[in-house]
Amino acid sequence: MSKVKAYGAQSATSPLAPLDIERRPLAAEDVQIDILYCGVCHSDLHTARNEWKNTIYPSVPGHEIVGRITAVGSNVTQFKVGDLAGVGCMVDSCGHCHPCAEGEEQYCESGFTGTYNGPVFGGENTYGGYSQQIVVKQSFVLHVTHDVKDLAAVAPLLCAGITTYSPLKHWGTGPGKKVGIVGLGGLGHMGVKIAHAMGAHVVLFTTSAGKVADAKRLGADEVCISSDPEQMAKYANQLDFILNTVAAPHALDPYMQLLKKDATMTLVGAPDRPHPGFEVFSLIFKRRHLAGSLIGGIAETQEMLDFCAKHGIVSDIEMIPMQDINTAYERMLKSDVKYRFVVDMASLK
Amino acid sequence: MSKVKAYGAQSATSPLAPLDIERRPLAAEDVQIDILYCGVCHSDLHTARNEWKNTIYPSVPGHEIVGRITAVGSNVTQFKVGDLAGVGCMVDSCGHCHPCAEGEEQYCESGFTGTYNGPVFGGENTYGGYSQQIVVKQSFVLHVTHDVKDLAAVAPLLCAGITTYSPLKHWGTGPGKKVGIVGLGGLGHMGVKIAHAMGAHVVLFTTSAGKVADAKRLGADEVCISSDPEQMAKYANQLDFILNTVAAPHALDPYMQLLKKDATMTLVGAPDRPHPGFEVFSLIFKRRHLAGSLIGGIAETQEMLDFCAKHGIVSDIEMIPMQDINTAYERMLKSDVKYRFVVDMASLK
Repeated sequence: MSKVKAYGAQSATSPLAPLDIERRPLAAEDVQIDILYCGVCHSDLHTARNEWKNTIYPSVPGHEIVGRITAVGSNVTQFKVGDLAGVGCMVDSCGHCHPCAEGEEQYCESGFTGTYNGPVFGGENTYGGYSQQIVVKQSFVLHVTHDVKDLAAVAPLLCAGITTYSPLKHWGTGPGKKVGIVGLGGLGHMGVKIAHAMGAHVVLFTTSAGKVADAKRLGADEVCISSDPEQMAKYANQLDFILNTVAAPHALDPYMQLLKKDATMTLVGAPDRPHPGFEVFSLIFKRRHLAGSLIGGIAETQEMLDFCAKHGIVSDIEMIPMQDINTAYERMLKSDVKYRFVVDMASLK
Repeated sequence: MSKVKAYGAQSATSPLAPLDIERRPLAAEDVQIDILYCGVCHSDLHTARNEWKNTIYPSVPGHEIVGRITAVGSNVTQFKVGDLAGVGCMVDSCGHCHPCAEGEEQYCESGFTGTYNGPVFGGENTYGGYSQQIVVKQSFVLHVTHDVKDLAAVAPLLCAGITTYSPLKHWGTGPGKKVGIVGLGGLGHMGVKIAHAMGAHVVLFTTSAGKVADAKRLGADEVCISSDPEQMAKYANQLDFILNTVAAPHALDPYMQLLKKDATMTLVGAPDRPHPGFEVFSLIFKRRHLAGSLIGGIAETQEMLDFCAKHGIVSDIEMIPMQDINTAYERMLKSDVKYRFVVDMASLK
């Protein structure tokens, strides 16, 4: 066991503060990573504040981890000391159910083990990336091949990147497809970059007129101000797929109307309350689909990292020291970040 | 033009009463049908009472029509005088858009012309099957090959049959699949029969303990009382597809939980208010889908009629004279019918 410095919440109402946590001794399959950078995901805040009603305390969030390997177990073959490595939202799963066998550990029938807050269906707590070091089974560790100067901006790919890449790929994003991305935040800005790199015609939907120029810089071919019914009407029945990244409850109907026959809108934002009910006719009249998607499997996460490295894609980030995390949470709630906070873990030393 | 007797509503608040309507003169592509039987669909009531806010008055409902051909236009090649014929929910569409070209006239981009209440997107009124006779373009007329003694019970196939057959087929119902049908009414009882005939393992979900025996007689392999959380829990993550036929707003979450990864629940009931909002996690955690489906195309409707004739499938009906339609509507609202009213059009003479 090794004691490492971390930042965490002791209760739903207490701010994040320094604490020490224990990391397990290195097992044969384990990789020990010194954490260099950790992205700040909205899920971190939901969990720290128990907004999903399943938080185990103390809660040490962080599942967008990039670091350097400092030790490997005796059976570790794919990684060596000194390698750059990434860890995302999962650190374990049953490994033998149907989804695990298909490489979709995120849908593990026994519930995967989250990088923080333990197994999905309850169990011992786990501590995430707001810490100096982490020990993870090699099969849940990713190779990072991006240029070393981009490392901080690579961290958000481990959650925001895969959360958008996986559904974009699953629902056939590519050349000749018109794809909508709803929301230009941490997830949305990755969705725009990745959908653009996949070759789709990208339409970004935002309520903020101030984000138009930025959306185009990030790769959107068109930007629609979603609060303007006239602009929305232009896209009626036009889109092959919509990736909706908005985490706050909002009306889904105006977006459903934009889908072609048989097309899908997929939700990746996870509000703590349901979206308002929508008109069933929105689904019935064009056999449209509403779906959800959860991060991606480990193999697909590696595929995403390699895709992003090849296309020069990283996140647009604002770097903060660990000590500023509570302020960062408040700013994230106001969407006052372009577009992802990343903690420089050197600040924990 | 020929004047024919009909039954219709003059306003949202007036009961259905006798009226005379005009049928157009026979054009080259037209088929004239003496209506023998017309099923009573919940949409008839929604339209007569303007519950979807789009009714043109007078409103003559009825889109589950079976009759005998009494005249054919000069270009009619597929039908002859004396043939049995069916007419469903549509009597025309643009014929050249992408869905029409694919034989999915129900999703016509210009909006199909309803058998009653005119074109979907507005236009001249049309009068449905609560009448002695109808004149319909041959390409929207179906062949009826069922035994002549079953004709009244065939009528509901033209809407309730195709509304369930089309999504069951589209989402891959067949041997080895476990399929849920929610609700045992006009649509649901057809869904049970058809899913069973397609070879699926059928689980019927109902709030009525009194319907268990009937559901099994109709073809359900299992029946789950959906108001009992313990019974529902047994089916968690078990179903390959759910066809939800309930037309009243209800909580969707308990059903979403029953779907396997990547599986779909399709709504075919069309409430006049939205269903309550549901937990996004229900979709996200297994990449589940919620979808809608609208009747079926003409070619698929013929396929469904032939499938039902081959498997001896008709609707379970209660025959009424036209004069009892208002009472039938009230009973339908209380689900007091097993399982579809059919009007004996001889009563109009």
